[in-house]
Amino acid sequence: MRIDDREKNQLRSVRITRNFIKHAEGSVLIEVGDTKVICTATVDEKVPPFLKGEGKGWVTAEYSMLPRATGNRNIREAAKGKQSGRTLEIQRLIGRALRSVVDLEALGERTVWLDCDVIQADGGTRTASITGAFVALADAMQGLVEEKKIKTIPIVDYLAATSVGLVDGEILLDLAFVEDSSAAVDMNIVITGKGNIVEVQGTGEENPFSEEEFLQLYKLAKEGVKELINIQKEALGELKILSKGE
Amino acid sequence: MRIDDREKNQLRSVRITRNFIKHAEGSVLIEVGDTKVICTATVDEKVPPFLKGEGKGWVTAEYSMLPRATGNRNIREAAKGKQSGRTLEIQRLIGRALRSVVDLEALGERTVWLDCDVIQADGGTRTASITGAFVALADAMQGLVEEKKIKTIPIVDYLAATSVGLVDGEILLDLAFVEDSSAAVDMNIVITGKGNIVEVQGTGEENPFSEEEFLQLYKLAKEGVKELINIQKEALGELKILSKGE
Amino acid sequence: MRIDDREKNQLRSVRITRNFIKHAEGSVLIEVGDTKVICTATVDEKVPPFLKGEGKGWVTAEYSMLPRATGNRNIREAAKGKQSGRTLEIQRLIGRALRSVVDLEALGERTVWLDCDVIQADGGTRTASITGAFVALADAMQGLVEEKKIKTIPIVDYLAATSVGLVDGEILLDLAFVEDSSAAVDMNIVITGKGNIVEVQGTGEENPFSEEEFLQLYKLAKEGVKELINIQKEALGELKILSKGE
Amino acid sequence: MRIDDREKNQLRSVRITRNFIKHAEGSVLIEVGDTKVICTATVDEKVPPFLKGEGKGWVTAEYSMLPRATGNRNIREAAKGKQSGRTLEIQRLIGRALRSVVDLEALGERTVWLDCDVIQADGGTRTASITGAFVALADAMQGLVEEKKIKTIPIVDYLAATSVGLVDGEILLDLAFVEDSSAAVDMNIVITGKGNIVEVQGTGEENPFSEEEFLQLYKLAKEGVKELINIQKEALGELKILSKGE
Amino acid sequence: MRIDDREKNQLRSVRITRNFIKHAEGSVLIEVGDTKVICTATVDEKVPPFLKGEGKGWVTAEYSMLPRATGNRNIREAAKGKQSGRTLEIQRLIGRALRSVVDLEALGERTVWLDCDVIQADGGTRTASITGAFVALADAMQGLVEEKKIKTIPIVDYLAATSVGLVDGEILLDLAFVEDSSAAVDMNIVITGKGNIVEVQGTGEENPFSEEEFLQLYKLAKEGVKELINIQKEALGELKILSKGE
Amino acid sequence: MRIDDREKNQLRSVRITRNFIKHAEGSVLIEVGDTKVICTATVDEKVPPFLKGEGKGWVTAEYSMLPRATGNRNIREAAKGKQSGRTLEIQRLIGRALRSVVDLEALGERTVWLDCDVIQADGGTRTASITGAFVALADAMQGLVEEKKIKTIPIVDYLAATSVGLVDGEILLDLAFVEDSSAAVDMNIVITGKGNIVEVQGTGEENPFSEEEFLQLYKLAKEGVKELINIQKEALGELKILSKGE
Repeated sequence: MRIDDREKNQLRSVRITRNFIKHAEGSVLIEVGDTKVICTATVDEKVPPFLKGEGKGWVTAEYSMLPRATGNRNIREAAKGKQSGRTLEIQRLIGRALRSVVDLEALGERTVWLDCDVIQADGGTRTASITGAFVALADAMQGLVEEKKIKTIPIVDYLAATSVGLVDGEILLDLAFVEDSSAAVDMNIVITGKGNIVEVQGTGEENPFSEEEFLQLYKLAKEGVKELINIQKEALGELKILSKGE
Repeated sequence: MRIDDREKNQLRSVRITRNFIKHAEGSVLIEVGDTKVICTATVDEKVPPFLKGEGKGWVTAEYSMLPRATGNRNIREAAKGKQSGRTLEIQRLIGRALRSVVDLEALGERTVWLDCDVIQADGGTRTASITGAFVALADAMQGLVEEKKIKTIPIVDYLAATSVGLVDGEILLDLAFVEDSSAAVDMNIVITGKGNIVEVQGTGEENPFSEEEFLQLYKLAKEGVKELINIQKEALGELKILSKGE
Repeated sequence: MRIDDREKNQLRSVRITRNFIKHAEGSVLIEVGDTKVICTATVDEKVPPFLKGEGKGWVTAEYSMLPRATGNRNIREAAKGKQSGRTLEIQRLIGRALRSVVDLEALGERTVWLDCDVIQADGGTRTASITGAFVALADAMQGLVEEKKIKTIPIVDYLAATSVGLVDGEILLDLAFVEDSSAAVDMNIVITGKGNIVEVQGTGEENPFSEEEFLQLYKLAKEGVKELINIQKEALGELKILSKGE
Repeated sequence: MRIDDREKNQLRSVRITRNFIKHAEGSVLIEVGDTKVICTATVDEKVPPFLKGEGKGWVTAEYSMLPRATGNRNIREAAKGKQSGRTLEIQRLIGRALRSVVDLEALGERTVWLDCDVIQADGGTRTASITGAFVALADAMQGLVEEKKIKTIPIVDYLAATSVGLVDGEILLDLAFVEDSSAAVDMNIVITGKGNIVEVQGTGEENPFSEEEFLQLYKLAKEGVKELINIQKEALGELKILSKGE
Repeated sequence: MRIDDREKNQLRSVRITRNFIKHAEGSVLIEVGDTKVICTATVDEKVPPFLKGEGKGWVTAEYSMLPRATGNRNIREAAKGKQSGRTLEIQRLIGRALRSVVDLEALGERTVWLDCDVIQADGGTRTASITGAFVALADAMQGLVEEKKIKTIPIVDYLAATSVGLVDGEILLDLAFVEDSSAAVDMNIVITGKGNIVEVQGTGEENPFSEEEFLQLYKLAKEGVKELINIQKEALGELKILSKGE
Repeated sequence: MRIDDREKNQLRSVRITRNFIKHAEGSVLIEVGDTKVICTATVDEKVPPFLKGEGKGWVTAEYSMLPRATGNRNIREAAKGKQSGRTLEIQRLIGRALRSVVDLEALGERTVWLDCDVIQADGGTRTASITGAFVALADAMQGLVEEKKIKTIPIVDYLAATSVGLVDGEILLDLAFVEDSSAAVDMNIVITGKGNIVEVQGTGEENPFSEEEFLQLYKLAKEGVKELINIQKEALGELKILSKGE
């Protein structure tokens, strides 16, 4: 049994609260166990310079943790004057992942900013960010439909992410912080509603892993994401983001 | 009547949730109307270089807003690579205000970091930060007492802050964002439980104000802070932060 | 008696030298006791982006101290690569104060930069900067009138600033550095020629102060500013900055 | 056939020149087709603060491209004043990958810096950096053995990396820049001499990919790395980096 | 005799390899003894803001050293977040020197960026950069002629640079690193094909030098540059950069 | 005749005011025509890390211009967040020049900071800074003697600097700004009291110059510096900085 009494293949409890911040076009508080992330989606009626006049939009993300989201206080990146490599890597991943399910032509010449701010961290902040940002994005897109700026929500598939790892010889789903810290292998995976892979990132820094472990990790992650997408669907409720049923 | 149906001398509804972030030594979600700030207190067993060996502690603050705390998205300061003058000014104010009620010798050679992160802004974020940070600080101090690192909570008085302003010729308490935006005069005031003034900052950028207005503003603010301190006391409940009654 | 033999309610000797730097549209050396600040006013025929096309101008300020303006050498901010919170706070104050007496529509779409560079510091550098910058601004405005870019000087009132403080239980005017260092309460106040308040900033970091002290401090400051404005008028001599008498 | 007449499963020609820079403890010019990277290994007899007194060493990497390594000139990161997210992500990957095959206890309290500077880029610069840095690291370790600072080379396995991708529906090995630019899926993989996986990073930003494609990509990459490790062994010649035969 | 068996007035062996980087409009590897610099010339069809609409072009340079170009590893300037004073000084010198022999009107409204990246340093990196950048510039100019963007190469004279110094009482040409380190006087000189001086920079930090030494240093440098220009001419071969014979 | 009615070989009027800033160990206002620089010398009882335990001291310089020292306002370097290449180059020159006449062993393990802040610029600010900083340095050294920290002033020779240039075919001494702007050749030279050369920097960016012009420029500069050193001696008056006569 795991420290929080979960089964090896069990997700932590997930709670998605929509409309969490009143100003944002889309906003979500996602809680995955004790990991809590505020995800907001902001619609900006401009595109970055490299896309000007291309007739398509852009989706980009920023990620941060409050200084005391973690057990020890982290120095605030704004005070240090620069974002760490870890932060930049995570926000690049979030943006890339979300873009993979957006029809940028259908979005039109506008940018969606996804801000993922971790207020409490307990492992899996980047995958919770992706899973939560998807819902915030859907809400912001629905807003554009309601304002009649676009006809249908330009999202082509559901999208969620989770982590898996090899901890003390066991393949575990959705690692909490203490599990993650002692994992020999750590893998984050982003998968769509149709079961296609958007991103696989597996690292065996302290312990290179075998092909067989690799395949088992992948299989477990796939099951986890399937559940997460069901939770997203429930949270989104009446909102049918995909024009054709799944 | 005001836009949110308040009386001129009425505070917005205030809610203080203690123990909001599980990792921090003290942590509070303070809600003043639609303004919501997470205040954490971190105890660091070190002092800054200028205090080394002086036998006293330090209290300092940092302030930030999530990019989408406001109606328009603000560029993230960590991404810009520097904190704005406004941010620095506010966090200097918060630190200075809280230090005024802490007995730094009694605190001992340690630093308390107060992080005030605005997750939703609707005016009065700096005064809500001070009011909330006071409670987070008290909880962190209580922790030190429980760990037997200090004997009693080294806080010498209660402390809260509010804003007042002159809006369309009316003196109003606790300005919401739309009121603040159209205020001719804007004043922030920090007062202790015993009624002493810690900080007064009044600005009439677009409209210098008379001595009489000044005195009325001050009087109204004083009443507001009195109420806020009562709310703090309720929130702190059993926790008696001052050794001798007030 | 005070360390420099002044009465409690006595300003230090003030000297204002106009046309101190030959290149600037307005320039002043202001000496308040041993505090010496060079204030220049630069007219720039542009406005910042947020004002473009609004038909009004802007007044902004920058503040700095030479590294050896003080008893110990300060690290040069240009070398550190950023301005301190103190610097940003002071220059925001100076700009805000001066804008309060300028008719920005009458100024037209141009920006006035007020650079206040402290070459020798002995307390009160921010208030000396405001008092001196006012004179430099008036000279620069007079230049615009002479170039026939505007018809009359777009200044609606005189403006000066001073500090007051509570030192060893005494309320003192115009604190020198040693007084300021030991002050329990420190208050800066900016007042116009007509006696209206533009800014009050009072801080009792180490010693919250009573309402009565607050009112006495304010009263003393008001007297001090009145004198400073007379000194400005003498310095400006023939230059009548206000179309209608005061 | 591919633009450079290669088979789908064919690596570009690889050339490894050892001792390329006279000052460095290990240095290699690795050429993979037209991609050319200078990899140096510097031994520093210190460890970073977080490892002090732990009795183990550290391996870290930095990555950069000359401004004109690419078709268009890139702004120099030193001139911009910060490293891009892409740079930080790549150098974190290189460091992590190389650490996975070093016995840090056996290395002792010292740091090896691996600098990978791309002088000409044509796709696959991060994987070429890893493959080349391994050889530079081996040479630097051999130097420590010769200086009798350590007894044997503390490397536990060979290590190389390559990229694979899905381009116009075809699974291709070792993508050149034009292939990489039009790839629907791009995967980098780092594998050891014993066939264990150290890192898998697959991205289908514009086109999520199926499980079957994923497995084919992985299989092809594995074959590519096997060849690269043979080329490393030839380049290292007499130098037997692993105490026991492979 | 000198440490590398050279005569006092003897240059180190110089090798210039053209077309070293395939992407750049001009690119050279220059080797002066063990000093090796990659010089690329990039043509950018824009001019900096201060030249817009002036009908003339610009030539500018950037300089850097790989971290391990030297005996001890230097911290990477991109990682530090700023270029050192030494780097800025050198790249200003290179740009200024090259501009002195370019007819900027004839170049037209375009900028040539000269990037000089030292991959191995053994003294004289700035002078080798100038000598090599000249050849890269000539090649880039020839490219513009071939593309029929300009009629003739807009270079008015050859240009090369070398160092001389006073070491242990001897006047030496083309100092290697160990000589440079112990030189009492160090002089860099940039001279044209017609024998005119573009830049003289002589420094006697630890030992002010006499007029006579100064003149001897200058004379020796002049001879050295003459030889370097002959080597440039050989390297450029068929390419006649100057319309009229020299 | 020159624009200010000077002869070709005539310096502008030079005024040196000692003890200009009350806090500094040495401080000078140097006026060379309309160029005005405040030079302060600060004694710091520490040496930089590279000199620790070497038994010798250090002399270093910083240079800046007030934003409105010039005809157009320059952006403040502290606001930009970095010092320009020009600033770094000049302050390196000033530090190097002054170190050449200081006996660093005799100075002992302390650092002298020379801050040169240009309050009004009209050409020749770097040479005026050197000439003025020498006097501030001498005063600070005298202070150390008086405090009995050292026995005699550890300065081995006088030192001053001036500029010469080739303007409209004429060789001119001590260029004012308008002359400098149109100079084909510009040379700065730093010479000691005994007539030895410390630094020569000559640039013919727009017009390479002949050997003959070079020698004439040098000769004129030498005469100019001789006069400047006489002015320094007068300014220093009773203070005999060199133990043995010159």
